[in-house]
Amino acid sequence: MSIRLENIGRGVRETRYAVRGPIVARAQELEQQGRDIIWCNIGNPQSLGQRPLTWIRQALALAEYPALAEQAQFPADVLEVAREIQRGSKHGLGVYTESKGFRFVRDAVARFISARDGIASDPEAIYLTDGASKAAQAVLNLLISGPQDGILIPIPQYPLYSATITLYGGAQLPYLLDEADDWKLTRAELDRSVAAARRAGITPRAIVVINPGNPTGAVLGAAEVEMVLDFARANDLAVLADEVYQENVYRPADRFVSFASVLEKKGLREVALFSFHSTSKGLLGECGHRGGYVECRNVPSEVLHEVIKLQSVSLCANAAGQIVTYLLVRTPAPGGPSHARWAAERKETFDSLARRARLLEEGLNAVPGIHCNAVAGAMYAFPRVTLPPGVTDDDYCMALLEETGICVVPGTGFGQAPGTWHFRTTILPPVEQIERVVERLGEFHRRFTAR
Amino acid sequence: MSIRLENIGRGVRETRYAVRGPIVARAQELEQQGRDIIWCNIGNPQSLGQRPLTWIRQALALAEYPALAEQAQFPADVLEVAREIQRGSKHGLGVYTESKGFRFVRDAVARFISARDGIASDPEAIYLTDGASKAAQAVLNLLISGPQDGILIPIPQYPLYSATITLYGGAQLPYLLDEADDWKLTRAELDRSVAAARRAGITPRAIVVINPGNPTGAVLGAAEVEMVLDFARANDLAVLADEVYQENVYRPADRFVSFASVLEKKGLREVALFSFHSTSKGLLGECGHRGGYVECRNVPSEVLHEVIKLQSVSLCANAAGQIVTYLLVRTPAPGGPSHARWAAERKETFDSLARRARLLEEGLNAVPGIHCNAVAGAMYAFPRVTLPPGVTDDDYCMALLEETGICVVPGTGFGQAPGTWHFRTTILPPVEQIERVVERLGEFHRRFTAR
Repeated sequence: MSIRLENIGRGVRETRYAVRGPIVARAQELEQQGRDIIWCNIGNPQSLGQRPLTWIRQALALAEYPALAEQAQFPADVLEVAREIQRGSKHGLGVYTESKGFRFVRDAVARFISARDGIASDPEAIYLTDGASKAAQAVLNLLISGPQDGILIPIPQYPLYSATITLYGGAQLPYLLDEADDWKLTRAELDRSVAAARRAGITPRAIVVINPGNPTGAVLGAAEVEMVLDFARANDLAVLADEVYQENVYRPADRFVSFASVLEKKGLREVALFSFHSTSKGLLGECGHRGGYVECRNVPSEVLHEVIKLQSVSLCANAAGQIVTYLLVRTPAPGGPSHARWAAERKETFDSLARRARLLEEGLNAVPGIHCNAVAGAMYAFPRVTLPPGVTDDDYCMALLEETGICVVPGTGFGQAPGTWHFRTTILPPVEQIERVVERLGEFHRRFTAR
Repeated sequence: MSIRLENIGRGVRETRYAVRGPIVARAQELEQQGRDIIWCNIGNPQSLGQRPLTWIRQALALAEYPALAEQAQFPADVLEVAREIQRGSKHGLGVYTESKGFRFVRDAVARFISARDGIASDPEAIYLTDGASKAAQAVLNLLISGPQDGILIPIPQYPLYSATITLYGGAQLPYLLDEADDWKLTRAELDRSVAAARRAGITPRAIVVINPGNPTGAVLGAAEVEMVLDFARANDLAVLADEVYQENVYRPADRFVSFASVLEKKGLREVALFSFHSTSKGLLGECGHRGGYVECRNVPSEVLHEVIKLQSVSLCANAAGQIVTYLLVRTPAPGGPSHARWAAERKETFDSLARRARLLEEGLNAVPGIHCNAVAGAMYAFPRVTLPPGVTDDDYCMALLEETGICVVPGTGFGQAPGTWHFRTTILPPVEQIERVVERLGEFHRRFTAR
């Protein structure tokens, strides 16, 4: 037999991705045996009852089957956006698009960025991808030649980054977020990480920043974004800005500040910036459609051509996902027939997410031995748990699953300061389930730590 | 500036993919300047007027927006298949599916393979992917650890394979198809290729076979399939069977024979087989939806788990593409309200493809200095051109584009025997355009070779 676990690609074998790891596999087994599982392991909103925006699904249905326009009643502005899609795609959703994605969608994304940040945006530097994950992987592929190429990643981080760096054979350069200060990102820690890498003979190539934070829930202020860009310039690093949760900022005092806006305000021409956005998060939750994009700044055009070439080998991102990306940024005009419903559906989702974030944060902090920083943004809490000696967060999360049916991901999957234990839970179960999660978790924690 | 062409990932830089290379880029420029381009470079049927099957688009529209069932008239069997999709997906198309893809789709694919070949098929060994390209890339990633790992590929081949092997840092082991014998695949040539690899210190890990052939148009008989499997067993190789054109077999005497059917008939338990299929080709041409799958046989389950892990890092294939895959294999029942239309639409597409294949083959062979083997299957002709000394097929194809607006891909992009020149053209332009292509090509060839 020619294929054995021992002889498959090393990168493949060593790659780890805890969000769908052994605890999730065990939860699937239990569910097949008839157990009730509360899925808190993955940011998959529609699987937990969040409803898609009608605006998006009506337009998609029309784009898939244009003859419907004559057979059913659609609001005039949905018919109009469907015509835009037909015109822009020329031949509908059944064609390979340009490798970068439909031009009319990239134009709309550029207008969205300009309107959001008050800056220019070049549609030729925007690439549509199968979700933001593929965009991040393409950029990391570009940056990593071998084990001497280092990428700074936050700890804790979303394991897409650690997994992809391992897969491509690069070096992970962890920088610790400060849990004692609401997961703050500090220049001192970034400097420490770069210095440690250089001492080890590794060349830092880029820094990954996730804002709002996954799994931390922290939202960066303008000063922190500026600090990261200064640091990147000083150390000749590219910046990968994972901004897929930009709409998920829950507290009135916070505001999402994009890396692009600060880069342009400061006129930084030396820092290459890759900014990622997605249709899977925000108030859409269209995970299954795999829509997303990366906008590149200060990247030489001959390098951009290499990204296109890489994309073109597997032809293009899926066209339906590109259309969802279009509908993310091409929203119904105020006063039009779809606007009120669209706004109401968004508000309902936003208010509910904000409420669940607060419920979860407060509920977790009410349990002795659990501490949870503010869930200011994104879709997760990453509480710290105090565990008896000799017990790991893997043990804790597996026991939690077996005893309560709650499926969360151990902190080890995201990285954590040595000697600390955490888990990641989404804020996505419906309100009544969140309350049950908090209650069962509290009881479990007391039982588990008393053993 | 931290990112320059000189310091990006080596694999990325060295990867070549001619189907969307410089000639295609030039054609896009010309089109923007107002020139009429005949796109013969890529198998993108709907961009050249092939219509999607109504069955597929009606069901997709309903799956995207289920409320339509009450608002418009749909045939009863479309409503039924839409209910199957809703039941099977549980939460619709907005969710991350299992990493392998929706279970109900994998069940349907397994039933399709069983019915096609009269053999058992395991839905747990089927993975749904964003088109067959991503499936092939995942398998190659598994097989390639470094430059010592060799993959046998046909010459000429579809450059997905050469590009991906380069990207992952493996070794391409070419085996020549015999142009003088209608692109026949011979054991002697396979043995030669393996022996040459071993002499160079390379371990052959797998063989890629494309049947029906891209770009050759050749269709393998049962004896050839059996020969390849014997060869794979003798040399401890995995087999990658690219069978995406299985429905594109045009001559009554030919029949598609799957690798799985021969493997099972011979009871070969030692040969690992990966078989790829797609929604982009056949009679669907749903390229933009990026649907496809790989079925694995004789692959240890712990290795299959590694494939799942790899998939899970970017979560799952797009859900709409998975649904198109479902509709590829879940066809309307005879006697039901959609069957006649579905059968008629398929027949129209098939007959037209078969006619264009013949027109192109005959038209090319009528030009002195051009020789084209039978276009028995797939969607391409790969004619050989006799060129004046000092001129390459790149020069030829660029001049063809500039002088006639016909966009084809030079043979170098696919590989060819030393000293021979070819180009690949699709058979996809509508009949009247095919006639114009043949005419203009003939005139151009005479002019070009007379210079």
